[in-house]
Amino acid sequence: NETDIKDVIVEVEQELSDEQIALLLESFPIKLRIEIWLSFSDETQQNVFIEMKPESRELLLNACDDELCFPLLTKLDAVDLLELSESLNDRFIDYAVSKMTAKQRSLYKKSCDYALDEVGHWQNFTEVQIPQQLKLSAVKKVCSKNLPTFTDVIYIVDDNAVLIGEIALNAIFKAESEEEYKSFINTDIEYISSNDDIAIASDKLIDSDTSALPVIDENRCLTGRLDLPTAYRYREQIAETQLIQAAGLVEEEDLFGNVWQSSKNRAVWLGINLVTAFLASWFIGLFEATIQQVVALAVLMPVVASMGGISGSQTITLIIRGLALGQINDANKKNIIAKELKVGAINGVLWAIVIGAITFVWFDNPLLSLTIFISILGNILIASLSGVWVPWMLSKFNIDPALSGSVVLTTVTDIFGFIVFLGLGSLLLL
Amino acid sequence: NETDIKDVIVEVEQELSDEQIALLLESFPIKLRIEIWLSFSDETQQNVFIEMKPESRELLLNACDDELCFPLLTKLDAVDLLELSESLNDRFIDYAVSKMTAKQRSLYKKSCDYALDEVGHWQNFTEVQIPQQLKLSAVKKVCSKNLPTFTDVIYIVDDNAVLIGEIALNAIFKAESEEEYKSFINTDIEYISSNDDIAIASDKLIDSDTSALPVIDENRCLTGRLDLPTAYRYREQIAETQLIQAAGLVEEEDLFGNVWQSSKNRAVWLGINLVTAFLASWFIGLFEATIQQVVALAVLMPVVASMGGISGSQTITLIIRGLALGQINDANKKNIIAKELKVGAINGVLWAIVIGAITFVWFDNPLLSLTIFISILGNILIASLSGVWVPWMLSKFNIDPALSGSVVLTTVTDIFGFIVFLGLGSLLLL
Repeated sequence: NETDIKDVIVEVEQELSDEQIALLLESFPIKLRIEIWLSFSDETQQNVFIEMKPESRELLLNACDDELCFPLLTKLDAVDLLELSESLNDRFIDYAVSKMTAKQRSLYKKSCDYALDEVGHWQNFTEVQIPQQLKLSAVKKVCSKNLPTFTDVIYIVDDNAVLIGEIALNAIFKAESEEEYKSFINTDIEYISSNDDIAIASDKLIDSDTSALPVIDENRCLTGRLDLPTAYRYREQIAETQLIQAAGLVEEEDLFGNVWQSSKNRAVWLGINLVTAFLASWFIGLFEATIQQVVALAVLMPVVASMGGISGSQTITLIIRGLALGQINDANKKNIIAKELKVGAINGVLWAIVIGAITFVWFDNPLLSLTIFISILGNILIASLSGVWVPWMLSKFNIDPALSGSVVLTTVTDIFGFIVFLGLGSLLLL
Repeated sequence: NETDIKDVIVEVEQELSDEQIALLLESFPIKLRIEIWLSFSDETQQNVFIEMKPESRELLLNACDDELCFPLLTKLDAVDLLELSESLNDRFIDYAVSKMTAKQRSLYKKSCDYALDEVGHWQNFTEVQIPQQLKLSAVKKVCSKNLPTFTDVIYIVDDNAVLIGEIALNAIFKAESEEEYKSFINTDIEYISSNDDIAIASDKLIDSDTSALPVIDENRCLTGRLDLPTAYRYREQIAETQLIQAAGLVEEEDLFGNVWQSSKNRAVWLGINLVTAFLASWFIGLFEATIQQVVALAVLMPVVASMGGISGSQTITLIIRGLALGQINDANKKNIIAKELKVGAINGVLWAIVIGAITFVWFDNPLLSLTIFISILGNILIASLSGVWVPWMLSKFNIDPALSGSVVLTTVTDIFGFIVFLGLGSLLLL
């Protein structure tokens, strides 16, 4: 069924977008993936290569011979290569640069001067600018050519490429005289600097309700533009990275990535959690004598720990979002804590009663019921307080609370829960 | 400092976007928020109202008298009201509809016929269509007017409003004769149906690399268009909702929301977790006699549970993403499980040795070390297996694994971990 496969490949090439083919490929184990990959046409290979996840790209380059890899890199422009450069070996980058047009090469070199978090690294170099002195008829001619997507305004620059203003595409064609044309140019425009933080610039562009914003350098010269898809893609990438890293994974892990590499990436997080788990164990160990006499305490430990952990993670989720949106500050922190403590008190009392009752039915020991009642209520209150306080402190120390918040929080609620529960048990039950 | 506050309010109105003001307002406790709200101009109030989170909007409407609320609803268009309608009381919706222009009212009524997950509910009604017979000069005139943002193509429709094709804005102006104009019309265009699923349509638009796609109804009539910001906002909203709901919170909870409402929302999740916690306790209870004789088992329980939980959540995070991207299917499931088990085996052996060694140093009991060694290794392997299997099964039953996956998974790893650890302890240590 050699021919069958070929038919399928041809159909896939026709029906699916490059991004979809990349996703599809990543669902195959490496060996099979390479085989399928090699059946695609050169053009598909080149386009799909750009859409892959960095780790998948690396896997592919490592699995193929250099003769198969180099052709993938012959048609990259500056923006493509910038996107790939982090995950490419130097010899591949050098080759790709050598195959570029002189113009793309110089754009690439310029962008490399910017850090990954600067707008300059992310801008597009599509040609949507016209010199100030160009006559209206010439402007109309230029604008009749194929324009890049997301172009509804054209930027006007002076002799030194300094950004003067912008004009809507249809205003250009509406203009019937030079004067009218000049009068349609809007000089009071929003722009971003190539040194701006890409996160802030993306938010600004998305808020501005336009398809792109011009990017200028320190001399106010127009260097490119930031378009809406780039801004949204940046935001989505950040959100996904956070989700992945919060689980102690390395960004963009391939489903079939190298087993040793995957194990190494995940081991770090397991190690960190082991330290916190042994810390909890050590505190439990302090009450060995108590547990020996009242084994029910050991039996109920997971209930105390779990209720504190869940309450805390509800609060912390809300607070992390509030911090990310800049809605939480010194002025309203107290009010937020007050509200979370009220919610914690209501749920604390409710579930402490429920758990106390179940415990009484199970173990028929009123003092044990009282012990767990107080522990649950106390742990849910502490969880509510820590749910605000832990991410707040972490962000003060410039640690991303979305990444490490819940480890710190569960450590706090576990240890507090065990101490109160076992400590109180020692007092009331021995 | 009455005047001071007024100055600040005026400055805020000038400097911040409506969305930023909405975010800012939500960072104030309700009472103060209403006070500040009332100092804004009517226009700002109307615009900011649209940008708020649904729950914040409800809080505001409930806190204000009707006379203050109604003016907020006088200038809504169909798209605005559709966005708000879920969180608005019927009397407010009726009032807003009565204040609309006849055209907006009919658009609103039409969109209400669509379900929330259909494209029809989300489309824009901006005027970017021209009839087929319109002469070139008339077309040019129409297109010289102010066009809505994100417009780089104009859609062409026939007498019955059936979508014929599209033409690039600059091609219209480039055309010098009727023939040339007709030849520039592209009839082979991508479109979406008003009954399409909004999630799939959003992906299609984003993949298409254009600012908008035309929306047609069952008769192929152009009803509106879906623009890029709407598509991305939908995706972002889904991602945020998942994150919030995974913590057992209700979507869009306000930082200062009603305490009773918040408590009620969160109680459900706490209750579900309580059931799973008591399940774990019940299994521990089966080994009461063992724990009484070897208290060290109780001390080390958190370590076994925690290592399984973390390994499992690493795997499940990867699998949930793979499922969402459609990369996991019956064909490659076995390979994925094989890979995860290999990673689990490597980390399992590594950490089982480390934990076994620490346990030996702490308790000086080789059989206890052996017990925890086997338990950790086994639990990490089970966690790796369940990390693939649990989200896979949940998605087969159409349950979103991003929401309930980790509860089910931790229940599995907790219970398995306790049974193996305490069961093996009973065999080896008694």
